[in-house]
Amino acid sequence: VLTLDHIRQAADLLHPAALRTPLLTSPGLDAAVGQPVLCKAECLQRGGSFKFRGAYHRLRRLPPAARAGGVIAASSGNHAAALALAAQILATHATVVLPADAPASKAAAARRRGATIVVYDRHRDDRDTIVADLAAAHGLTVVPSADHPDVIAGNATVALEILADTNHIDTLLVPIGGGGLAAGCATVVKALTPATRVIGVEPAAGDDTARSLRAGTRQTIPTPTTIADGLRHTTPAQLPFSIMQRLLDDVLTVSDTDITAAVTLAFTHLKTVIEPTGAAALAAASQIHPRRGKIAVVLSGGNADWTTLHPMLADPRPAA
Amino acid sequence: VLTLDHIRQAADLLHPAALRTPLLTSPGLDAAVGQPVLCKAECLQRGGSFKFRGAYHRLRRLPPAARAGGVIAASSGNHAAALALAAQILATHATVVLPADAPASKAAAARRRGATIVVYDRHRDDRDTIVADLAAAHGLTVVPSADHPDVIAGNATVALEILADTNHIDTLLVPIGGGGLAAGCATVVKALTPATRVIGVEPAAGDDTARSLRAGTRQTIPTPTTIADGLRHTTPAQLPFSIMQRLLDDVLTVSDTDITAAVTLAFTHLKTVIEPTGAAALAAASQIHPRRGKIAVVLSGGNADWTTLHPMLADPRPAA
Repeated sequence: VLTLDHIRQAADLLHPAALRTPLLTSPGLDAAVGQPVLCKAECLQRGGSFKFRGAYHRLRRLPPAARAGGVIAASSGNHAAALALAAQILATHATVVLPADAPASKAAAARRRGATIVVYDRHRDDRDTIVADLAAAHGLTVVPSADHPDVIAGNATVALEILADTNHIDTLLVPIGGGGLAAGCATVVKALTPATRVIGVEPAAGDDTARSLRAGTRQTIPTPTTIADGLRHTTPAQLPFSIMQRLLDDVLTVSDTDITAAVTLAFTHLKTVIEPTGAAALAAASQIHPRRGKIAVVLSGGNADWTTLHPMLADPRPAA
Repeated sequence: VLTLDHIRQAADLLHPAALRTPLLTSPGLDAAVGQPVLCKAECLQRGGSFKFRGAYHRLRRLPPAARAGGVIAASSGNHAAALALAAQILATHATVVLPADAPASKAAAARRRGATIVVYDRHRDDRDTIVADLAAAHGLTVVPSADHPDVIAGNATVALEILADTNHIDTLLVPIGGGGLAAGCATVVKALTPATRVIGVEPAAGDDTARSLRAGTRQTIPTPTTIADGLRHTTPAQLPFSIMQRLLDDVLTVSDTDITAAVTLAFTHLKTVIEPTGAAALAAASQIHPRRGKIAVVLSGGNADWTTLHPMLADPRPAA
């Protein structure tokens, strides 16, 4: 269902709309983590996260009439900002359905790019029903945040670029929300360097994918309470889950404390602002034994409100 | 004295040691500045600033015996961190002479990379004398922070990359400390796209280059008081000055307030941490009339202490 060819075509379609983000390194970061870590800085991607790759690619693949009719998506925030930007670039209109607790900066990013915003209650409403109703009423095309081959193929270009920028990695750590990034990256890595381990990372409080992989079927958990607002999924998306079942080597979990420390590490050593969700993979790097070899992590996004970042960064530890 | 060929060779020597930093854009930043701005994120460069390009290139060009004998430099901080990292990569030793008021993070970066650190008083001591005495006593090779063709050629690769990543720019804004970055970038831009204006940016309190260009000879001012610790130069370096005299279209000045606002803009919209010095060119972007066309700015570095950044970022303005 998802081939390396499909992903390579996605890379062609994404150029030059998407930014080729750098693979950052820092001796200070390596010292803090205890081993060298290569960091793919998708927090610098247009729209502030890797989500732009999937959203833009899906829109490019839509038949012109469907694209012109407008698109809609539910999102914890980053997919909304990404879809709004992609729609703006491709001269169509986006409607985004956001949880009431989405960071203000993510909602603002979508609004600034001309999207119509619909707010729902994460604990009470079924966002998929809201999306389906609006799509039917207004003739909009639904662009899933993870559960579509074009979206996953776009996200997967992250891994193509990582492998192009480094000779070899032994372990790739990727955060798992809906699973679209992890599924895409695993597809690339297992096709090109099968010996490389691909490990997903979830918040300890939101381990729906780890549970589902252990059970062999998709499990649903209550809405998790975690600082990583982009990883508050209750169940993995269907297509990503089936890919992760085949290709993922393991899933690690991290605490909110680990995530907070990783946000500070990126700020101090990589000069980048990452949101808690974007810090999950870096937060897990110290769980990998140094003898396992070279690690790369995906810093998946950077859209955090100052009110969230401020207490995380206020730690008085020196920048040494 | 400095040719495009020399700079293209520098680019070859710098690959892959130096990071090919991204050219960042953001609709939110454009809205705040009042026009589109392309931002070359050298804050993400290894060592945390563009200085790595010049330092590493100079070391690569040194005869092996000289390189093995150790290197020394005076620096406001970033050149020290860069030289220490370059020396570490090329398996030699660096001694760096830093002002007592250099940010702790810059001194820590140099120390972490194994450099020997000598501290001087910016207002009392003559750093060049200290460097010359230590170089003579220990047989070290001096690596100037700006005043050498190899250093300028290395820095100039910043402009090569900017022009490679965009179809065309009308104005390039570059901060001026010693002038090595501005001189190098001007050399590239005037050779490749002569109609593009190259404008230097200084803190209003440290306008030694603007004064020198007006006077036609290098002028010396008292040590400036500005938040931009990397731009507290009292006079432009000789070789960069002679290049800037020929090639610079103008010099703009910015206040510490402008610089503070630009640091916050980069944090909010570009997800990058820039130091005050690194924000100077972005701070000047709003001084360019939008009718002048496409602007690129160099975010020259990101090595700032949290104690400096914290009050700058604590502004309660929303991330919208």
